[in-house]
Amino acid sequence: MPTPELAVIGGGQLARMMQQSATALGVRIRLLAEGPDVSAAQVVPDHRVGDYTDLETLRAVVADVPVVTFDHEHVPPEHLRTLESEGHACRPGPHALLYAQDKGSMRERLGALGAPCPRNAPISSAQDLESFGFPAVLKTTRGGYDGKGVWVVRSVADAEEAFSAGTPLLAEELVDFRRELSALVARSPSGEVRAYPVVESRQAGGVCNEVIAPAPDLDPALAEAARDLAVKIATELDVTGILAVELFETTDGRLLVNELAMRPHNTGHWSIDGAHTSQFENHLRAVLDLPLGSTDARAPWSVMVNVLGGSVEDLQAQRSVVLAAEPDVKIHLYGKAVKAGRKVGHVTAYGDDLDDVLARARRAAALFIDG
Amino acid sequence: MPTPELAVIGGGQLARMMQQSATALGVRIRLLAEGPDVSAAQVVPDHRVGDYTDLETLRAVVADVPVVTFDHEHVPPEHLRTLESEGHACRPGPHALLYAQDKGSMRERLGALGAPCPRNAPISSAQDLESFGFPAVLKTTRGGYDGKGVWVVRSVADAEEAFSAGTPLLAEELVDFRRELSALVARSPSGEVRAYPVVESRQAGGVCNEVIAPAPDLDPALAEAARDLAVKIATELDVTGILAVELFETTDGRLLVNELAMRPHNTGHWSIDGAHTSQFENHLRAVLDLPLGSTDARAPWSVMVNVLGGSVEDLQAQRSVVLAAEPDVKIHLYGKAVKAGRKVGHVTAYGDDLDDVLARARRAAALFIDG
Repeated sequence: MPTPELAVIGGGQLARMMQQSATALGVRIRLLAEGPDVSAAQVVPDHRVGDYTDLETLRAVVADVPVVTFDHEHVPPEHLRTLESEGHACRPGPHALLYAQDKGSMRERLGALGAPCPRNAPISSAQDLESFGFPAVLKTTRGGYDGKGVWVVRSVADAEEAFSAGTPLLAEELVDFRRELSALVARSPSGEVRAYPVVESRQAGGVCNEVIAPAPDLDPALAEAARDLAVKIATELDVTGILAVELFETTDGRLLVNELAMRPHNTGHWSIDGAHTSQFENHLRAVLDLPLGSTDARAPWSVMVNVLGGSVEDLQAQRSVVLAAEPDVKIHLYGKAVKAGRKVGHVTAYGDDLDDVLARARRAAALFIDG
Repeated sequence: MPTPELAVIGGGQLARMMQQSATALGVRIRLLAEGPDVSAAQVVPDHRVGDYTDLETLRAVVADVPVVTFDHEHVPPEHLRTLESEGHACRPGPHALLYAQDKGSMRERLGALGAPCPRNAPISSAQDLESFGFPAVLKTTRGGYDGKGVWVVRSVADAEEAFSAGTPLLAEELVDFRRELSALVARSPSGEVRAYPVVESRQAGGVCNEVIAPAPDLDPALAEAARDLAVKIATELDVTGILAVELFETTDGRLLVNELAMRPHNTGHWSIDGAHTSQFENHLRAVLDLPLGSTDARAPWSVMVNVLGGSVEDLQAQRSVVLAAEPDVKIHLYGKAVKAGRKVGHVTAYGDDLDDVLARARRAAALFIDG
């Protein structure tokens, strides 16, 4: 059996959707999965089960594989440096991943690059927080995601839970924003960069809920600025693969960087059905240093809505209900057991009329969530 | 681990491409593969290796699986009848598959339906052939494909090889045709049918080489007649899944049925990138009796060109050359070792200008074939 071209660390839905593109490109993937039946392990035959924080496990998985990429940003950077020193290309590399793993380093580096960020400061005491002022958004610098590790505080008393987390904290101004945007780019080791249309991301409960591509009524100058910013960050930080730059569009019309993600991102899932080259295909092309494909949209409007665990337990059985109601919405189920609020899939609609596209995608998602 | 919803018999590229759609729909597939590293076994973890002509092997593979479908039409019909009697839904069923397996039965049944066919007759002797007349196309009624088991004969002497095959033969008139067309439909057990745009199929050496969707300059009345004919055949023969009706467009503007295939078909590969719902997704939706998706094209023109084994040995290494030349052609490699003339992949281009689309697809395929 030929040696895999690419190792993917982490067996979630991102690795699962990478495999669909890998199949077309003829890329053999070796997967490190968290369990024998996690999302991507269901579709990648060459998988091992193990702990991605264990160096020996990582070494065994990538032993004969030249390039390593990731389903998530949680692999310890010191392990990645070891793998690099042993001849494996990690894409993105630990020097770039640091800025997706540590919000303090990210803010410092983006500040040095002149990238617009919310006012921010490291916080190690109640005194620091008092000096920063209220209201403030407190974040753990590491490990937070989907609203976890984030607190909006209006007094030192509000910060009790944050301080008790016992990890380094960052304070950021509470931004008065009109909406959230996301600028995705793919970048290869050769330096080729391609930017996707800037999208609007709508959150509910701290979790990405809906994405509209392109962001409706976005000032073309702001769209260009967002794309340029994402290209600059990808280039300056030497990101390889997909970089997602999550942005605030402030009520006074500025852009501020909220978060960075260095992997295919929820705000890019629309591209599977809505762009000429999906973010998953371009991620693979980027990390394998193949020429990138067009990031242009194929339809005037695409809308992705996440399927979160709700009262519908049997997603398979529910497919016939959803497809009967919306035969042309594209379904993506992740093979995960339904738990309240867990991302278990997404749906995408596309077409010429935004209201219609939005209504169709929402209806399909609602039928998967609460029937 | 949950029970698979669907068993697929045969591990070629059609099963491989089914798996990409199955991943999105959350369909777990159990595969019976001919070998441990055949095309689909590379991407379906739950596969068994065995002989599809052996009933006990088939029984073991489908034991806990409610629905069975196929990568090819070669499973013995008596085994399928046994599986059906044991409670498995075979889609398509043996009563339909018969007409894709046996050209004599196909001609007889299509004749009874009033479907236009080339003049034909069963041949069991030189005398029969003399009576049929020359020139004639002699075909083995079973097992022929891609030009194998087909002879154009102009005398009894020409038929020596055909007669020595020792299998039943069918003679057909040598049709004076302008071009070959293909009409694909998906049909579900509930009776829902959706027809794809009629395409032009260009052959070289008896093998499908290029497909243009839709067929250029096709008389709309003839296109409608071809679609109606495919819907009628699917319905009357009770086909479930994809039915491909390969047609001749004669020089005097008539349609004649050439062949039937009851599975996703090479003339439908363009639909992965060029239609709202690919033939693989609609095949799965059909055999699982889910509502079908739109078969409309997403672009004015799509062109698929097969990648046949040529002088390029390392298709993986060649990807960067192909994508540098044609970054927006969609690549589909099947994970097969290169052998002269073997189908090892296909490429698809789409766009507004047929000449441009055709040139791009041909250029990409040529770079994969002979560099």
